[in-house]
Amino acid sequence: MLTLDNHPTGRHFLQIPGPSPVPDRILRAMSLPTIDHRGPEFAVLGRRVLEGIAQVFQTRHPVIIYPASGTGAWEAALANTLSPGDHVLMYETGHFATLWNRMATRLGLKTEFLGLPGIEGWRRGVQAHMIEERLRADREHAIKAVCVVHNETSTGVTSDIAAVRRAIDAAGHPALLMVDSISGLASADYRHDEWGVDVTVSGSQKGLMLPPGISFNAVSPRAIEASKTARLPKSFWAWDEIIEMNKGGYWPYTPNTNLLYGLAESCDMLLSPQHGGLPAVFARHQRWAAGVRAAVNAWGLDIQCADPAVYSPVLTGVMMPEGVDADAVRRVIYERFDCSLGTGLGKVKGRMFRIGHLGDCNDLTLVAAVAGCEMGLKLSGVKLAGSGVQAAMDYFASNAVRLAQLHSG
Amino acid sequence: MLTLDNHPTGRHFLQIPGPSPVPDRILRAMSLPTIDHRGPEFAVLGRRVLEGIAQVFQTRHPVIIYPASGTGAWEAALANTLSPGDHVLMYETGHFATLWNRMATRLGLKTEFLGLPGIEGWRRGVQAHMIEERLRADREHAIKAVCVVHNETSTGVTSDIAAVRRAIDAAGHPALLMVDSISGLASADYRHDEWGVDVTVSGSQKGLMLPPGISFNAVSPRAIEASKTARLPKSFWAWDEIIEMNKGGYWPYTPNTNLLYGLAESCDMLLSPQHGGLPAVFARHQRWAAGVRAAVNAWGLDIQCADPAVYSPVLTGVMMPEGVDADAVRRVIYERFDCSLGTGLGKVKGRMFRIGHLGDCNDLTLVAAVAGCEMGLKLSGVKLAGSGVQAAMDYFASNAVRLAQLHSG
Amino acid sequence: MLTLDNHPTGRHFLQIPGPSPVPDRILRAMSLPTIDHRGPEFAVLGRRVLEGIAQVFQTRHPVIIYPASGTGAWEAALANTLSPGDHVLMYETGHFATLWNRMATRLGLKTEFLGLPGIEGWRRGVQAHMIEERLRADREHAIKAVCVVHNETSTGVTSDIAAVRRAIDAAGHPALLMVDSISGLASADYRHDEWGVDVTVSGSQKGLMLPPGISFNAVSPRAIEASKTARLPKSFWAWDEIIEMNKGGYWPYTPNTNLLYGLAESCDMLLSPQHGGLPAVFARHQRWAAGVRAAVNAWGLDIQCADPAVYSPVLTGVMMPEGVDADAVRRVIYERFDCSLGTGLGKVKGRMFRIGHLGDCNDLTLVAAVAGCEMGLKLSGVKLAGSGVQAAMDYFASNAVRLAQLHSG
Amino acid sequence: MLTLDNHPTGRHFLQIPGPSPVPDRILRAMSLPTIDHRGPEFAVLGRRVLEGIAQVFQTRHPVIIYPASGTGAWEAALANTLSPGDHVLMYETGHFATLWNRMATRLGLKTEFLGLPGIEGWRRGVQAHMIEERLRADREHAIKAVCVVHNETSTGVTSDIAAVRRAIDAAGHPALLMVDSISGLASADYRHDEWGVDVTVSGSQKGLMLPPGISFNAVSPRAIEASKTARLPKSFWAWDEIIEMNKGGYWPYTPNTNLLYGLAESCDMLLSPQHGGLPAVFARHQRWAAGVRAAVNAWGLDIQCADPAVYSPVLTGVMMPEGVDADAVRRVIYERFDCSLGTGLGKVKGRMFRIGHLGDCNDLTLVAAVAGCEMGLKLSGVKLAGSGVQAAMDYFASNAVRLAQLHSG
Repeated sequence: MLTLDNHPTGRHFLQIPGPSPVPDRILRAMSLPTIDHRGPEFAVLGRRVLEGIAQVFQTRHPVIIYPASGTGAWEAALANTLSPGDHVLMYETGHFATLWNRMATRLGLKTEFLGLPGIEGWRRGVQAHMIEERLRADREHAIKAVCVVHNETSTGVTSDIAAVRRAIDAAGHPALLMVDSISGLASADYRHDEWGVDVTVSGSQKGLMLPPGISFNAVSPRAIEASKTARLPKSFWAWDEIIEMNKGGYWPYTPNTNLLYGLAESCDMLLSPQHGGLPAVFARHQRWAAGVRAAVNAWGLDIQCADPAVYSPVLTGVMMPEGVDADAVRRVIYERFDCSLGTGLGKVKGRMFRIGHLGDCNDLTLVAAVAGCEMGLKLSGVKLAGSGVQAAMDYFASNAVRLAQLHSG
Repeated sequence: MLTLDNHPTGRHFLQIPGPSPVPDRILRAMSLPTIDHRGPEFAVLGRRVLEGIAQVFQTRHPVIIYPASGTGAWEAALANTLSPGDHVLMYETGHFATLWNRMATRLGLKTEFLGLPGIEGWRRGVQAHMIEERLRADREHAIKAVCVVHNETSTGVTSDIAAVRRAIDAAGHPALLMVDSISGLASADYRHDEWGVDVTVSGSQKGLMLPPGISFNAVSPRAIEASKTARLPKSFWAWDEIIEMNKGGYWPYTPNTNLLYGLAESCDMLLSPQHGGLPAVFARHQRWAAGVRAAVNAWGLDIQCADPAVYSPVLTGVMMPEGVDADAVRRVIYERFDCSLGTGLGKVKGRMFRIGHLGDCNDLTLVAAVAGCEMGLKLSGVKLAGSGVQAAMDYFASNAVRLAQLHSG
Repeated sequence: MLTLDNHPTGRHFLQIPGPSPVPDRILRAMSLPTIDHRGPEFAVLGRRVLEGIAQVFQTRHPVIIYPASGTGAWEAALANTLSPGDHVLMYETGHFATLWNRMATRLGLKTEFLGLPGIEGWRRGVQAHMIEERLRADREHAIKAVCVVHNETSTGVTSDIAAVRRAIDAAGHPALLMVDSISGLASADYRHDEWGVDVTVSGSQKGLMLPPGISFNAVSPRAIEASKTARLPKSFWAWDEIIEMNKGGYWPYTPNTNLLYGLAESCDMLLSPQHGGLPAVFARHQRWAAGVRAAVNAWGLDIQCADPAVYSPVLTGVMMPEGVDADAVRRVIYERFDCSLGTGLGKVKGRMFRIGHLGDCNDLTLVAAVAGCEMGLKLSGVKLAGSGVQAAMDYFASNAVRLAQLHSG
Repeated sequence: MLTLDNHPTGRHFLQIPGPSPVPDRILRAMSLPTIDHRGPEFAVLGRRVLEGIAQVFQTRHPVIIYPASGTGAWEAALANTLSPGDHVLMYETGHFATLWNRMATRLGLKTEFLGLPGIEGWRRGVQAHMIEERLRADREHAIKAVCVVHNETSTGVTSDIAAVRRAIDAAGHPALLMVDSISGLASADYRHDEWGVDVTVSGSQKGLMLPPGISFNAVSPRAIEASKTARLPKSFWAWDEIIEMNKGGYWPYTPNTNLLYGLAESCDMLLSPQHGGLPAVFARHQRWAAGVRAAVNAWGLDIQCADPAVYSPVLTGVMMPEGVDADAVRRVIYERFDCSLGTGLGKVKGRMFRIGHLGDCNDLTLVAAVAGCEMGLKLSGVKLAGSGVQAAMDYFASNAVRLAQLHSG
């Protein structure tokens, strides 16, 4: 019998930037009995989640739901739209941009990895002007796609996607715009249609508050058009049959039924007019992020994101002083305070940790997380300028809103 | 379809002194399918919980498990051992002692309510010497029972039960000793046999971390003897048939099967050698209580319990400054920070609130609760001497222990 | 970690006449986190379940919900309305009537136990004319209450309660009418107000499809009037404080919160207009009962209830041929076919078993249960006249209705 | 709030050949909170499921667990081992073999689809001698892989995989042997190592009793060797990084954590020595299949599988008489008896339905399913030779074993 009891008592504080804590409501929905994915009940479920997720992406076009985790949806975006050897322009915002770039290379695409040099690129958002310049230089339109990450989970930077679209348009270039918003969707404002994105890739285990296991491609008409001639081999990821079957609320192969139950619940929670819908979701993430940043500033530590204009509402990267092993600090916090934080990845391994402030959180959850960090930093011998917890509390109390509303259940 | 969504996001901080937060492990155990309470599987369950709960009471004698909430177990203690008009000496430690006294009166007993005058009695523990004096004066042994509350949930005072036993013995008096440890059991050290208690009353929704709905009478051989001649009417509460049927692992009427599943899990968690068993349970409650008291002291507010020797490890009563409505403060904390605190009861209504620090908690839960209080107090205009959160964190960090241990699941 | 795995695979068929199988929907509702029973959310829940349960009892008067199992509600009915030594007329329909009678005696009431002689009384319903005669003879109105069982769980007989009311009225007698409908409510038609019942006792684990642990007293204005002068000691069971507190949606002591979640869900399911409300609930129980009786008849075995007018829609008692140990048959069915049946109780111990057909069932569940019986009977060497399964299937197929309806979830 | 209530009461009988009913134990395990997939607890879980699933495949070599449904694992098998244009010999056993063949074509492989003509090939197992002949003719070893389906879910035929291995060896041909045992694993005996399979593809929603969403590639050393030079683009499906990371109990990208909880529970259930381990699992599927076939024979209907040597223990295809629309019959059974059956696929659409008898079943579940079929067939006007239910009961009763064992929970 499986138990998870590393800690003797109390609830774990899962403050990594995803998987985010799954609300009981969603776990409960996921425990409904698995049904026949070819039966009449399923079609009702299928249509419901397809409609709900499109609202979350802010799109009127198809959203493909894969019974696979987010990395698969990266592959799907590439495999459906590109052909072997195609030239792709990718922008390096951090570790996940790097992994996507590596995947594209592995799939046989010719990738070009643009970005600011060294660690600097990992502390700022996408520089849209660099993309514009590069595309202007591509007179023959060899570049078939521009790939950027919306919310870079490894750094805590949320790039301006609308600016990237403007850059492509300004260059008069026909490249597709493909965006990873795996950790941005349903936490940071994201507008697939309005921003002119061709393929948005996302996953379940972040703002959607689900366990990992389903992922998404939101696709524009231009992307669908491109998929008709793209020659990378594709079958499992192929959009065509899925879009066709989705019309009836079904999928061509076995969908991830119980996670779809969870997705139906998640959409209900996110879109609920009672609680303010998506604008309220985005606002509370911004609020939490501001509270956590107030804490980091009070400690006198650096926020990894060096440009306040692109601070992430989803997570905050906290740089350690010279000589401090961030993973040792994380271990103290995990072992003594039952709180998980994100590790530093790639270029910043050991030099920072990441505090997730997304999904099923509230002010006290984040004060607790910040307190765990503060105690752990002190126990690890890190000198702090002041109390981050106090700063976070000051922020939250000064900006407190009346949250509780009585409903008739 | 029932939902509980007063707050739009995140997990509620249930910091009342019971019901305490029910761990997922227990909720999960409670969702096992209800079985035939006369079938062979049930006997295995029945014997298992009877054995486990006896260990929790630290007794080798029978523990009666009622399919009823704690107030019923109060009635059971009286109805099994006493006759109409019997003289009972009860001690006023607070609101729950008062309610038990009222119940005894309603059941037709002649109660005498001993205690210190006014609110003073609600800030100190049982004065064993007063009991001793009263019993010495009762030369004819008219008094049939002495009733005291171990952990007074309305005040945050944990009385010395062994001292009460010594007082009765010193007076050479044959009265039964009946103790309410509804909110003490499985949080504060409690020794039914060693302390010579005749009937201990307890309930499920406190240290046992279960929802309300089952309750207990741990009974001594003397109490069983008394029950044979006691003449208060009794049927549902009658010990005799239950003790008889329990020998086979069954109950005379339908038991509360799904809560018994929870109780089996609860005993596993509390008694687990891996996590240190009951001594570790008691130690962590003491630790949490010390952290919370550090916070109240830092705020410059009074702890309701005026005698440090009997501070409760389960809850702390926080007195408000003159003119502050404690319930208005609680409302702010509930509405803005999604945290429930205990209200002031009876004599202290509106003058204090109670912070529960029991059951399925950890350091960060309590820092969060203290933070909710601190922000709510400030928003309510209460002047605080200093930061309670800082004090709690200092206490927890200075006393941090390595909690996490890897198990093979 | 608790598991229930007596059988290696598949779902247990719990075909006892209660506890009935708890639907996943209810188990899921019961797993919501326990909340503060004094907080604002609770009042919403409290009012909701009080309103729902009154509809189920078909009453406009108060229904008391006890955090205790059904036997407690028997005691509550007596303790609230009667005084020590009061004369009570009880009618013997079977084992549970006998137990209620024994309880009344134990509580100090003077009980008179009316009924047909020997086992005959256990095969027929309440003989209202006998009650009428007895009451007419009671010229001084010494009899304070008439107690009958609506659906006798030990036999499978559902008595005509309206006839009992008419008998009391015909005798012009002021005795209160108290009815046990523990296993009748929400399965068999039951009309507290229309039938002029003063106190109806019920429980959670039968037609309400909940685990055991809450129970009910539906009370008439006359019963409430009687409770003001009744002198049996009462405190936990006392209606007065509960009725008073219920006005705000609260209880005077800790309610069984998680079972109330289940009750809210149960009322939603039973009263759902979409599925036809209570009339549809009663109709399907009648239908299941008819199918099961068709099976028993086909086997050539006797149905314990000898009067077709009072066949129970909830359970069917199956008499064994001379020399067959019914419990040995039950054991075979349990061990080999993973199906639990009710044992014979009291006067019919070992001579019959009971098939429950209530709550969360459907046609195939009952065909399966009947098949388990048929195979078990054969393996036990009982000669059967014909196939009961075939007869049940014939009945169900001939009376099949279109059940499935598509909802939008 | 999502509900699934097409039917007003009772539990749905999900008798399709997968997804199979998910046991409560697994749903409960899946509701554990999602944890950090990079943290220390996760490694314990990861190693545990990797070890367990290898035992289920009966292999000592790596098993890749994909966070994707079964169709993805088909693609993974091909993408890891083959290069564009490679010649693959596939054998047509039914609809799923056809779909796999179509996928291979779509991925740019040159497929050759061997099989018996017309519907005949869909009623028999793989003809190993045809494979041997074809391979002997392939003197240049152009054929790189032989792909067969172990348990063809569309027909109810379980082919002899050891015979295919012998055929390849007899031909002295180096082709890889790739087997789809999506619906065979953990229901039908399957021996990856002993039978010399190079890649076995499987999924979660059949014998493993999980919801859909994870899938598997069990791989031989030869398959791993082949993957090093295979040139189909691969990234998400690539074995190399997964095998490397699995050594520590981790995955290169986010795994499907909550389904892995379920998998740990599933392995515990399947491998439990207490219940007989895999041999007992296989034996009970054979037993259920025999009971269901007895029913079909009694009805006088044809079993789709025309060769008794390869009857599937997992499902049985039931051919309808000329002129009967199998899907209309299925609809009657679904709407009136709350039972889902598998539809006829591809060449046999509308001509047959499939009864799943796998996973979390027991004798009574299957009697119920057969009863639903029998009543539905009659209501649809299909003339039956005799009672299938009676035949199934005869079979089960004659072969009854004592299943129940008391455990200490």
